[in-house]
Amino acid sequence: MTSELLIDRVRLTPVLIADPPLLNTQGVHQPYTPRLIVEIATRGGVTGVGETYGDSAYLGLARPLAEALPGHAVTDVNGLFRLADQLGAGPATVGEGRDEGVDAGGLRGVRTAAKLRLSVVSAFEVACLDALGRTLGLPVHALLGGKVRDTVDYSAYLFHRWAAHPAGGGKDDWGAALDPAGIVAQARRFTTAYGFRSFKLKGGVFEPDREIAAIRALADAFPGHPLRLDPNGAWSVETSVYVAEQLDGLLEYLEDPASGTDRMAEVAARTRVPLATNMCVTTFPEIPDAFARGAVRIVLSDHHYWGGLHRTRELAAVCRTFGIGLSMHSNTHLGISLAAMTHVAATVPDLDHACDTHYPWQTEDVLTRRHVFRAGRLAVSDAPGLGVALDRERLAVLHRRWLDDDGSMRERDDAAAMRRADPRWVTPAVPRW
Amino acid sequence: MTSELLIDRVRLTPVLIADPPLLNTQGVHQPYTPRLIVEIATRGGVTGVGETYGDSAYLGLARPLAEALPGHAVTDVNGLFRLADQLGAGPATVGEGRDEGVDAGGLRGVRTAAKLRLSVVSAFEVACLDALGRTLGLPVHALLGGKVRDTVDYSAYLFHRWAAHPAGGGKDDWGAALDPAGIVAQARRFTTAYGFRSFKLKGGVFEPDREIAAIRALADAFPGHPLRLDPNGAWSVETSVYVAEQLDGLLEYLEDPASGTDRMAEVAARTRVPLATNMCVTTFPEIPDAFARGAVRIVLSDHHYWGGLHRTRELAAVCRTFGIGLSMHSNTHLGISLAAMTHVAATVPDLDHACDTHYPWQTEDVLTRRHVFRAGRLAVSDAPGLGVALDRERLAVLHRRWLDDDGSMRERDDAAAMRRADPRWVTPAVPRW
Repeated sequence: MTSELLIDRVRLTPVLIADPPLLNTQGVHQPYTPRLIVEIATRGGVTGVGETYGDSAYLGLARPLAEALPGHAVTDVNGLFRLADQLGAGPATVGEGRDEGVDAGGLRGVRTAAKLRLSVVSAFEVACLDALGRTLGLPVHALLGGKVRDTVDYSAYLFHRWAAHPAGGGKDDWGAALDPAGIVAQARRFTTAYGFRSFKLKGGVFEPDREIAAIRALADAFPGHPLRLDPNGAWSVETSVYVAEQLDGLLEYLEDPASGTDRMAEVAARTRVPLATNMCVTTFPEIPDAFARGAVRIVLSDHHYWGGLHRTRELAAVCRTFGIGLSMHSNTHLGISLAAMTHVAATVPDLDHACDTHYPWQTEDVLTRRHVFRAGRLAVSDAPGLGVALDRERLAVLHRRWLDDDGSMRERDDAAAMRRADPRWVTPAVPRW
Repeated sequence: MTSELLIDRVRLTPVLIADPPLLNTQGVHQPYTPRLIVEIATRGGVTGVGETYGDSAYLGLARPLAEALPGHAVTDVNGLFRLADQLGAGPATVGEGRDEGVDAGGLRGVRTAAKLRLSVVSAFEVACLDALGRTLGLPVHALLGGKVRDTVDYSAYLFHRWAAHPAGGGKDDWGAALDPAGIVAQARRFTTAYGFRSFKLKGGVFEPDREIAAIRALADAFPGHPLRLDPNGAWSVETSVYVAEQLDGLLEYLEDPASGTDRMAEVAARTRVPLATNMCVTTFPEIPDAFARGAVRIVLSDHHYWGGLHRTRELAAVCRTFGIGLSMHSNTHLGISLAAMTHVAATVPDLDHACDTHYPWQTEDVLTRRHVFRAGRLAVSDAPGLGVALDRERLAVLHRRWLDDDGSMRERDDAAAMRRADPRWVTPAVPRW
């Protein structure tokens, strides 16, 4: 193998990106959300980029990995996992395999050291694939066996939200949406601007009847469009079954109505509405129990916490084997991760649901050109690598914001953000309703 | 993507290769076994090679696929499956998804059109990966995410056998092995010549007590070495449990003692000896039932019938997720397939058992240089592609043998081969004992 594919240096750039006041069951998005940009430069002079969560636990794992990588080949993405394991959990992370409760910021299911590590590795894997593709003149999808479609469907991600953050920052022009009419108006703007056909409403914010009403309003306004509701595990089994009964026939799927495989399995046994998850099945070890008990019909993959694009394809194979559907989860992210999602999604034959993305909510990016949704879809790039280019000036600005931050934004904490509006707010106990 | 990666032409070369008189429960290997060599030449002037079963059903599927491929990119290995599906089952194959009983020649489990198609696609996938790797200057393992080991362990594949075929042909100098002493002598030659540490005995040939005695003789002669016994599903549940009891503590695993998931699950429930299979789990759809019922603890993958190297990695991910071990099955094959096995095996982290290979039994190959086992291992090639080179003269000779054949060898049929020695031989009903 030629030395041009060996890693010369790795640059880590934590950034804070503007995030609107989107509500969820734990609180509200902060005005700024931390993300980590990973650049991997080869001896051949090519640089690949990746992106992941930017909280300090992730940074603490990324730094030793970045230091260990020079001299490794960008083709050796399987070796990233071994290397990350060897480096251990890192100083700033939680105990190995220990259940640390639901990840506060991300609503990403159980938080363990292994999962944090995979989320970090994913950014390095994507950066390696980008660098490899750029070097070889091949798109990332070709490095994954080739695209089976030319466009990838995305859904509009609807949120109850405020017009502005109480303490300023993270501004946009979407205005408030706090009732069914507001949600329908938001959906209409999404369809007009981007052509999305599927709608996902983040739930668990208001009492279930109000969210049922929002889904009904969407069904009336957009007949025949796939609809989803995701309260992030906020409901009891009884409430979940009640909502499922109320919305039977209207929902493509109900996402994480209740928390944990036990409750999800019980809900699943009592409703015809398909259940999806990005909370009770977030790692390979969680799969056997959840599948055996019929807890979920669709897994929402997230290449960050599943460990990258190869692992996402492996997850797809596991789901396919067991007749479980696959779609994609999203958290606040930039265009690098959206490009990565699009490449891997393009290679998965049985991706039967539109993927989630927060991207339209992000007014800022680190790319020279924003991705553009047309007819609710992104075209799959055939340019070398991910097909994106870093805007170094924008990256510097967003990194400067991270450097200048007083520490209040460097950890994503939706409950803390909510306390700025409501000092008495505490993370609600589950089930909330 | 540059046009140099587009397929210019595909050449299919059926060959007959010498095969010694190895005994199994269905009969005996023929003097010559059909294999199919696939060459895929790119517009860039690079040729990649693949290999698969060569019986007429495979040829019948390979021909339309070969005709359809020019203009496709060698990166588009995912697209091979779609293309093969579109081309349909082909004229010479069995009905779609229909159970046609156990594959007569190969002892490869249930034979269906879908599985035949995957076996054909696998050769094209390997040839594409070889061509891609040669073009890019990358070994095939690097196209699969990178090797996680530098050598791959193989096991010695022991057979009860005759010294020579009754009607001539397929000669070698190994002599007969028809009792425990003969098997131990065979094993000794394998260790001396190649350093193999693990031994697999093909069973189902003689009454179980005689094969139990052979395993005991091996355990005495090679204390501490992993031992396996594979009667290809020839035994009843009771016999399987009896053999497992007799050999408890001596076997690494017992392979396909009984036929079908029902019987395997029953045996598994009644013994501590781990059960392995390359017969009841040979396709992804067979996995959920077999895993749920605990029928197997180890799946022996075969990249031919699982559909290539990417699919083998997917199978590995499924097994890893469910805590099922993985090793590799082998049938009579040449050095191209051995190279392919070695590359994919090198990328699978949890390949915890030595892989099977018939290769030492093959006195003929189509490569300019034979693979050499040292300390029971093959080194993983870092040369571009598979790291092998076709010997065109040898290929022409073996193809000429196929052309000149009167039809008696073009379909592998171990029962027919046995009838040449014993005209009254019929394929034994299962269970045989």
